[in-house]
This record gives sequence, C-alpha cells and structure tokens, in this order.
Amino acid sequence: MADPTPVQAGADAAGTAPSGADPVEIARSLIRCPSVTPQEGGALACLEGMLGAAGFTVHRVKLTGPDTPDVENLYARFGTKGPNLCFAGHTDVVPPGDPSHWRFPPFEGAIHGGMLYGRGAVDMKGGVAAFVAAGIDFAHSHGGAASEGEMAPGSISFLITGDEEGPAINGTEKLLRWLADRDERLDHCVLGEPSSRAVLGDMVKIGRRGSLSGTLTVHGKQGHVGYPHLAENPIPGLTKLLAGLYGEPLDGGNTHFQASNLEVVSVDVGNPAYNVIPAEARARFNVRFNELWTPQTLAAEIEKRLRDAAGNSVRWSVDFEARSSDSFLTAPGAFVELAVEAIAQATGQRPELSTTGGTSDARFIKDYCPVIEFGLVGTTMHAVDESTPVAEIQALTRVYAGIIERYFATFGR
Amino acid sequence: MADPTPVQAGADAAGTAPSGADPVEIARSLIRCPSVTPQEGGALACLEGMLGAAGFTVHRVKLTGPDTPDVENLYARFGTKGPNLCFAGHTDVVPPGDPSHWRFPPFEGAIHGGMLYGRGAVDMKGGVAAFVAAGIDFAHSHGGAASEGEMAPGSISFLITGDEEGPAINGTEKLLRWLADRDERLDHCVLGEPSSRAVLGDMVKIGRRGSLSGTLTVHGKQGHVGYPHLAENPIPGLTKLLAGLYGEPLDGGNTHFQASNLEVVSVDVGNPAYNVIPAEARARFNVRFNELWTPQTLAAEIEKRLRDAAGNSVRWSVDFEARSSDSFLTAPGAFVELAVEAIAQATGQRPELSTTGGTSDARFIKDYCPVIEFGLVGTTMHAVDESTPVAEIQALTRVYAGIIERYFATFGR
Repeated sequence: MADPTPVQAGADAAGTAPSGADPVEIARSLIRCPSVTPQEGGALACLEGMLGAAGFTVHRVKLTGPDTPDVENLYARFGTKGPNLCFAGHTDVVPPGDPSHWRFPPFEGAIHGGMLYGRGAVDMKGGVAAFVAAGIDFAHSHGGAASEGEMAPGSISFLITGDEEGPAINGTEKLLRWLADRDERLDHCVLGEPSSRAVLGDMVKIGRRGSLSGTLTVHGKQGHVGYPHLAENPIPGLTKLLAGLYGEPLDGGNTHFQASNLEVVSVDVGNPAYNVIPAEARARFNVRFNELWTPQTLAAEIEKRLRDAAGNSVRWSVDFEARSSDSFLTAPGAFVELAVEAIAQATGQRPELSTTGGTSDARFIKDYCPVIEFGLVGTTMHAVDESTPVAEIQALTRVYAGIIERYFATFGR
Repeated sequence: MADPTPVQAGADAAGTAPSGADPVEIARSLIRCPSVTPQEGGALACLEGMLGAAGFTVHRVKLTGPDTPDVENLYARFGTKGPNLCFAGHTDVVPPGDPSHWRFPPFEGAIHGGMLYGRGAVDMKGGVAAFVAAGIDFAHSHGGAASEGEMAPGSISFLITGDEEGPAINGTEKLLRWLADRDERLDHCVLGEPSSRAVLGDMVKIGRRGSLSGTLTVHGKQGHVGYPHLAENPIPGLTKLLAGLYGEPLDGGNTHFQASNLEVVSVDVGNPAYNVIPAEARARFNVRFNELWTPQTLAAEIEKRLRDAAGNSVRWSVDFEARSSDSFLTAPGAFVELAVEAIAQATGQRPELSTTGGTSDARFIKDYCPVIEFGLVGTTMHAVDESTPVAEIQALTRVYAGIIERYFATFGR
C-alpha cells in the first residue's frame, strides 16, 4: 500500500497546533479504548476524567431495555445559565474486522505521515476529541471550575452515547428523555458526525431525510409448474406491483432536500425447486424521504400505488416497520449562519447546506432543539485503515471553538 | 375424516373381478414392500418371482453412477418374436411422511370401503400390478412357459425401474441403453403412470412438453440506501427483465399441445438490511414447452428477450440447467387408436388425447419407440392416504389386456 501523505485542511489550518487542550492526544486516548458497541471500553471513563478536571459536571447514565444490551452514556455540562449549546456524539465504534488487515493496530492511535490511524479516528472519536478540546478551552477561559461556570455567558454541554453504531435503543433517544425528565434544557446542538465530503468544511448538514421501511407480500397459490392453471404464481404480480412502486418519482425535492427515493432492497421467494410454483413472494423496501412527506402520508401514497397497480388481479399486503423516522430541517438563520462563518474561517471552505445521506442521532435531537451536523471527512469510516489527517482534527477544533465564540456572541446573556 | 366410499370405474367395470391373475393382490404385495427410492424393498424380487413362474425371462439390472445411489431395475419378457410391446413403470415410491398421519399404515395394503390404501397405490404399484396381471394372463393363454413363448404372436415385456421418484439417473434412461446394447428392441410402449384426471379412462397421454430451467442474474453495485447515486440497485433491472420474459406468449400451442409456458419460480436477493442496496438479484425460471421449440431454440429466444429488455442499461447473465428435456408426440395412428378403443371398452370413457402435465420417464422411452401413458386417477399420489378404488385396478387390468389383444391383432405376426 502506498504511503499516505497528509491532506492539508483549510487555508489557515496548516501546521498550527491549538494552544490549549490537545485534541489529537484526546483522540488517541479515545482510540486506545476498544469501545466496540455495546462495550464502554474505557472511553467514557476517559472523558469523565478530563471533563471533571476542567470543571464540567459529569453524569454517567446507564440505559437499559428488554432484549438489548445495557449501554453506558455520558452527559456533561459547564455553566449554569442558558443558553445551553450542546455538542453530541458517540464513542462506540464498529468492529475493526481482522486487525492483521490494518496497517497499524486499530486500537493503538498510531500517527504516520501526518495521519491518525485507528477505528473511530473519523467516526467519530476524532470529532468528539475536537469538541471536547474546544469545550475544555472554553471552560478554562471562564475560570475552569464548576463553581465558576456561572460566570460564563451560557453553558456548554456534551451528550455522548455508547449506542450509535448498534441498535440505538439505549442511547441518544433515551438519554434525551432522561435529560428532559430532569428539566435539563438544550437550546442548540451540533452533532459531530463526519459530515464533510471531500475536504474538511465542504458540507454541513442542516437536516436529514426521513426513513420508512416495509415489506410487500404478494399471495398466490402453490402448485406444480406443469399445471400452472391449478396454481397462482405470485411473482408476476410482484413484478407488476414493483413497477407501480417505482413508477412516478415521489417528488422533485425542494430548496433544501433531494427528491425522495424508494429502493427495493430485497426480493425473496426462497423456492429451491424448478418444478414448483411458489405460494408467496416478498419484497422489502426503504424510502428516504424529504419534508414533503410524513411517514403517514408516505405510507398512504405507497398503499395507493400498490392498490392502483394491483387492480383486482393481485392479492397483496404491506407491512411497514414500526421504527420509521421523520425528516427534519434546521432552517437557515442565525444558528446555521454562525456555524457557516466559523467553518469558513477555520477551513477556508464555504460549506454546502445539505440534507443528504443516511440517518443519524440528529433524528432524535431535532425533537428537543435545532441541530446541525458538522465533522470530519467520512471517506474511511467503517473501513480498514480508518484514518484522518491530524491537521484536520486541529482545524475541526478551531471550527468548534469558533462556533462556541460566535454562539455566545449571538445568543449569550 | 369421512368414510370414503368406493368410486365406480367405467360402465362395464363394476364388480367383475378378472378371471386370471389377481391384480389387487399383486398391488397389495407390492405395497407391502417399503421401496422408498432408492430402496428395492423386495418389490422387484416379488415381480421376479411371479413373472418367472409365468414363463417370463427376467433380468435384474443394478445400475450405478458417481454421486448417486445404486439402483435396482428389472426387465422381463415373454415371447421371442417381435413385435415387442413393452409396459413400463416403477416400483419405487416417495416417502410416506409420518405414518401416524395415515388412516391405514402406508405399507400394509389395507382395503376398506372398496378402496386400496397405501403408498404407491396410485403412483404406481397399482398400475404395475394391472399390467403384470394382464401380461401373466397373456403368457398363460400362450402356454405359460418360456419355451412356449415362441408360439405367441409377438412379445410382451416389462421395463421396471426403482429410480423414477429419485434423481432418475440409474433408472429408465440407463436401462434403455442397457437393452439397446444387447440389441433388445422395443416396438411400442405403454407407460402405466397415473394419467387419468377425474375418472379412469378420461385421459391418455400421447406426448409431453419439454422442460428447460435457468437462472437469470442481474448485476449491480452494493451501497448505502442513503446514497443511491453511489450504488446500482439490481432489482429495478430484474423487474424490467422479468417483464420482458413474461411479455409476449411464447406460442399459441397447436392441435396436440398447450401453449408453451414460462414460470418464474423464485426470485432471491437475500439482503437482510433495509439500509443496504444489494449487489445482485437472481430469478430462477422453468419453461414447459411444446414441439414448436427445442431447448436450443427456446434458450436463444429467452436470451433475445432478455437482451431486448435490458438494452444498454442492465447488466445481466443467464445460466441454463444442463438437464433439459425435449418435447415429444406419439402422433395419433394405429397404436394410439387401439389404446383408445381398449380404454373405451373397459371404462366407458372416450379418453382425451393429452400432452399436458409434468415430465415422466416417457421422455427417455420416446427415443427408442412410440410411447403413450395410461394409468389410474392421480389425485392422491404423493399424498397422505394415497388410495385407489379396487374396481379401478381391475378395470385398468382389462384396459391393458384389451391393449395387448388389439396390439397383436394389428401388429402381430
């Protein structure tokens, strides 16, 4: 494999290390914790230590539920007044696969050629390290002790889950409810997931499409392939219904959103015999949809399309998965604008305001406060040799510090 | 379960038992042999004994092949001259399943309410018993000893396999080659598979459609459902290709054949995730085709349809199964006509000349001599409580005796 060369971050990022807390060393410490979901792996303990020392009030929150592993989570806050600017993220990581396939051990935090290697370097221990470093610097500049937090123009908080890569049941969603139950208010949130596409700063996410999944079943009648008139093959009906589903585009998108998109992700009959006509055929589909739909209106549209395509000739049923998610948009305004300016200043990039991509924990946070997502370049996430330029972790720290500064200049008291 | 009442066979069949060999007792003896493929189970030994005693020359032929069980088969002949009228069949049966689900033990040969119960009663120990009884009567009427067979106006033979319900590799196909290698000539053949639909005598099969199977694969590119532009979902392409395959009817059939029919029997992707676009999608299909096609011309037509449907937008490949079978027709003429007359006289039914249904060992026999299929009503074959009216076994014996008589009147020397 070729020796990777360091990628320069934005124009003013080259070479200058931050003056306070060192985000690269924090990232390395976190990478050394083997926190594969649902293992805490020492990652939250590591954060608890450094945040406690910097004057944050830290809560370790173990969340539990039936049929799913217990998960540790963390909430930390500096400052007693509002507004409360929250940085959200996760310390759990996906498994590294065979460590021998890695250039450097996945839980070592090796730096080579200006790159930091390790599972989670990008997704998202690098991002957590950057906002934690920026938050610690903010605390230091306002006294650096919990008792002095009231001097700050507001509060900085961290909402860190250990269940983002897993079932996401004992993670952010429940932690937000736990906070609400304690009247802990979040005013705005920055989720540090990898949002940049090719260069740090080229994209900030100000919303996400929703997601709706379901299974379509076409019912037929089993029989011998030599006597098709005695059977009813469900596959032609399924083909017809899928053509109906694909038919017209769901919409054309709008200013902030791509067009909604339906993908049939699997079709399954499972008939091993060539001489048997099967009794049933199933297709599973997922729709990523924009703010022109809710899960309810979309489900109704899908049912209408199936009904129209089926006519009286196809017997079918559809089941939607209970766990759908709504789309959301944090409309451009003061909060988005101050983030854009901080990104532009630290990286030299004017970020695209995007709502593309998969889902994230922002789908839970948006029910409590406006949320945007900004973080590292995601190219190597979940891959072998996951890595990020050291300079981009440093530049990301300056972005988050710039957001904090501008946030309290705009919203602080 | 209601008490089954005996079904009356054709008009002149009611109640009159045959005067010579008793086909019902032969059927019961065969049913008592648990000859589930590939087990001989004593069934061929039973036939060997009674045919040898009646003056037949009997060959037990064990056929073998790689990766498939050895199978016992039998060929027996009475008479030394041509023409040689062969009755073909099998003594192997499909497994009975859980015997406790049966009203009577599946290998007992119970008679109750005029019905003979047991695995193979219909498919096809009942048929074998009927033609063996008719053949023994023929031998008796021509001296009943091997040395006297030359007095007969021709020969009667039995071609019995133990591998019809299994892979059919060490059965009829190889046994026919074994005979040809010994210059043993068959002039005409009656296969005793259950051919009647609702009433004994309502259908005789004078040909069969061919069968061609294959797998269509559409190739795409795996990816995340949130980023469809980075992936290539194979399912829309598969849907398009299946629509092309179903498109126009293959043909309209002709005097003796139904239209050829394509069934897609399975579609399989096997993707368990809602957020992943799969890399490949497969469909498996089978065509039952008439004499307007050969496997080669049909495969070319299928490839053309796929090519036309795919255009340049779908990447696909198709694999045809090596084991296809041709269609065949034993055209109406003297042989078919004498069979129809024998059926009509013994059952009161004028049988439909049909080429419908699945494949049978006739697909091998037709390469050696004209073949027709006539036997019991198939309704309960392969099912729990497989059974046939005793009277229909007796009537079937009269049909076969009538065929023998008319055959030698027409073709004998």
